[in-house]
Amino acid sequence: MARRVTILGAGLVGSLLAIILKKRGYDVTVYERRPDMRLNLMSAGKSINLAMSERGWRALELAGLRKDIQDIAIPMYGRYLHQADGSSAFQQYGTNNEAIYSVSRGELNRKLMTLAEEHGVTIKFDHKCTRVDVAENRLHIEHPDGSTQTIDTDLLFGADGAFSALRNSYIHMDRVDARHFYLKHGYKELSIPPLEGGALQIEENGLHIWPRKNFMMIALPNTDGNFTCTLFMPFEGKDSFEQLQTEADVKAFFNEHFPDAVPKMPTLMEDFFGNPTASLITTFIEPWHYKDKSALIGDAAHAIVPFYGQGMNAGFEDCTILAGLMDQYKDDWATILKTYDDMRKPNGDAVAELALKNFIEMRDKVADAAFLERKKIEKELVKRYPEQFISVYEMVSFSHIPYNTAISCIAAQDELLGKIMATGNFFENIKQDIFLQQLDKWVAGYHESVQQLDFGHKDD
Amino acid sequence: MARRVTILGAGLVGSLLAIILKKRGYDVTVYERRPDMRLNLMSAGKSINLAMSERGWRALELAGLRKDIQDIAIPMYGRYLHQADGSSAFQQYGTNNEAIYSVSRGELNRKLMTLAEEHGVTIKFDHKCTRVDVAENRLHIEHPDGSTQTIDTDLLFGADGAFSALRNSYIHMDRVDARHFYLKHGYKELSIPPLEGGALQIEENGLHIWPRKNFMMIALPNTDGNFTCTLFMPFEGKDSFEQLQTEADVKAFFNEHFPDAVPKMPTLMEDFFGNPTASLITTFIEPWHYKDKSALIGDAAHAIVPFYGQGMNAGFEDCTILAGLMDQYKDDWATILKTYDDMRKPNGDAVAELALKNFIEMRDKVADAAFLERKKIEKELVKRYPEQFISVYEMVSFSHIPYNTAISCIAAQDELLGKIMATGNFFENIKQDIFLQQLDKWVAGYHESVQQLDFGHKDD
Repeated sequence: MARRVTILGAGLVGSLLAIILKKRGYDVTVYERRPDMRLNLMSAGKSINLAMSERGWRALELAGLRKDIQDIAIPMYGRYLHQADGSSAFQQYGTNNEAIYSVSRGELNRKLMTLAEEHGVTIKFDHKCTRVDVAENRLHIEHPDGSTQTIDTDLLFGADGAFSALRNSYIHMDRVDARHFYLKHGYKELSIPPLEGGALQIEENGLHIWPRKNFMMIALPNTDGNFTCTLFMPFEGKDSFEQLQTEADVKAFFNEHFPDAVPKMPTLMEDFFGNPTASLITTFIEPWHYKDKSALIGDAAHAIVPFYGQGMNAGFEDCTILAGLMDQYKDDWATILKTYDDMRKPNGDAVAELALKNFIEMRDKVADAAFLERKKIEKELVKRYPEQFISVYEMVSFSHIPYNTAISCIAAQDELLGKIMATGNFFENIKQDIFLQQLDKWVAGYHESVQQLDFGHKDD
Repeated sequence: MARRVTILGAGLVGSLLAIILKKRGYDVTVYERRPDMRLNLMSAGKSINLAMSERGWRALELAGLRKDIQDIAIPMYGRYLHQADGSSAFQQYGTNNEAIYSVSRGELNRKLMTLAEEHGVTIKFDHKCTRVDVAENRLHIEHPDGSTQTIDTDLLFGADGAFSALRNSYIHMDRVDARHFYLKHGYKELSIPPLEGGALQIEENGLHIWPRKNFMMIALPNTDGNFTCTLFMPFEGKDSFEQLQTEADVKAFFNEHFPDAVPKMPTLMEDFFGNPTASLITTFIEPWHYKDKSALIGDAAHAIVPFYGQGMNAGFEDCTILAGLMDQYKDDWATILKTYDDMRKPNGDAVAELALKNFIEMRDKVADAAFLERKKIEKELVKRYPEQFISVYEMVSFSHIPYNTAISCIAAQDELLGKIMATGNFFENIKQDIFLQQLDKWVAGYHESVQQLDFGHKDD
């Protein structure tokens, strides 16, 4: 029976998983390569804000942290679009006033670490795992002074992110498949601070987007009145980071593309030249586990791009699923890890694809009138056919429906909405009974075509 | 100007590249992790025979080795099919009696190493490169006694195979994309030795295939009268290595599926249980080079499955292309490596795809009467329309047409042959003028649809 549990990484997923395992009676030690972030509040200048949605909240509930985090979370009810022509539009996310929540990654992480320690978890900071002898479950640890040690463990979780040491050890094993790729786009953090006196410069309760086809800027609210902006843009070529070398370049570019934002960004130059230009990786690996000995979780298993706001949510859902399997299979870790892998791998693949697709939606399609119209129609369908239709966005952000079910509904929803929109003005048409009869049939046909998919339990 | 050139790996590609560079006046040192294979003739029991084809010969010519290797190469003019019903068939590869050549990997490698040393190349055996500091071009070398050293170089080539240390160092760099995956099939080497007195047991001048849909056995001739057999079969599931645990299992399986071969395989049991079951990897990486400092070549850049017999040929062609670029750009290695990458990466991707497709062809389609008929028709088309039609197989094996051109012709050839075969018995039809007129049009249409592709120079 596995008793000594080791977790690599005291990030969001590692800390949450530590709490869940400790609550079940395991001895849990977490090895974190960085120093304790609670002792040093410096920002790395490259951490995109978190958007907590339904899957994240459920996992926090397991840790007893929902209430604490709700107090520091800012609801975002929809997208504020800042169009190139200076106009703006609001596009609500949910049908019933649902929101996603802007949360400070640092604050959430600090709370999770502290809670883990309060439960009796040991977190060893400045312990960098360089590799794992997977068959032996032996960790090689390096300390900041260059000294090394090895540690043997019964059960190991790699929650150590996209560049996971456990993942790197897996990929050198026979018959482990792996892939990673970077977007041609990078990102840079910028800022819209509050006015003197504390007044906010843009609306608080939304996710702001400046969609510009091949690039975009977004902004998420923080509790201190500051908005964290992120510019996503190609590294090279037309409208790229490479082209913005001087302050004059940056000034001209922002004045051309983000004229409404520029007056609100007093620290633009120092942010732009002080913060790094970071890359965006997507990773896949198969399998995610090794016998009853170890498994990958969170970004270590499935690092994704941030455009659906699902990275942390997916990692937290990994924890929820694992907790459920522990309830079901007790200490049978061979079965737990195998089942976890079978259940989660297809969803890891799916959320990676959803995140990549949403980049195109955010930076390009949201600027289209037809897209905005479609979103309104989708909401009307959710209201009229709550048993038959739920939009993909709502599945991902406001439900626990598996990500791969959501992916599988995309083509059928595209077809349905395509038919509807081909008939002209939807909100005029639905005043006519004959159209409504046709709509009933189309929606029933859609529902028929997807009902064999796994939508989970009704009360999920 | 780069003068100190370092090559990782004294395999086929590394040794050939060393010769090519040394002939151009560079100081070349090769680091090989294994001991000198010329001092120890043990077989690893897992090295599929080589099938040398046109691209390989051209590169050997650069090294002045064509004649030497021809003396130890056995021409294979086509496939000998051993069907499940006990019947057999011969299917010629070329239209003009072209052949691919069975060559001993070990013998070829030994000759290349010796030639390299004769030219003044230094090969350091038992020097294992564990990693490379890519920006500094610094190699970390480990010796069998555990001692280590670092070596700085001006220009570095990773010719160290699928598990290349240089590739492994590249993949940890920002914005380098990489992928690798294994087939669900593994392979095991077996043997059909000559009879006492030396008589061959099966025809010498062909590549023997026992196609059995989801698995297959092949056999290639050696100069000593022995045929190296390779069984390709799933690791798990129906008809898999996992299922063959006992001698009784193996005996029953071979008697059922390869009854004609069994009496010719006196060492079947010791081969089967003595030789490893090996896996089959395909790798991709992008980019293949770093500035003017280093590049991947051969399997290190593009490890592929062996089913088109193109692994070594593709690696040798990398050398030919590189030699051409050295002629063109002299010592401008920034341009040479960038151009090499741009030219070869699409072809590396293409040959990987061709090799994967050919596995299905070899193990499954070749057993079909329709497939054999198609191959005959293709040859007739090559004869009748030499300026307009060349089959994909002939492009790959008997020409220097880029692999990605060959891949791009597949769909058009499928369409052309589909039309032709839908009209019934081709070899009866072509006796009629009206059919021939139709055929002219179809072939002209095919030619039109592919003629914008890069077929290289006519005299290539």
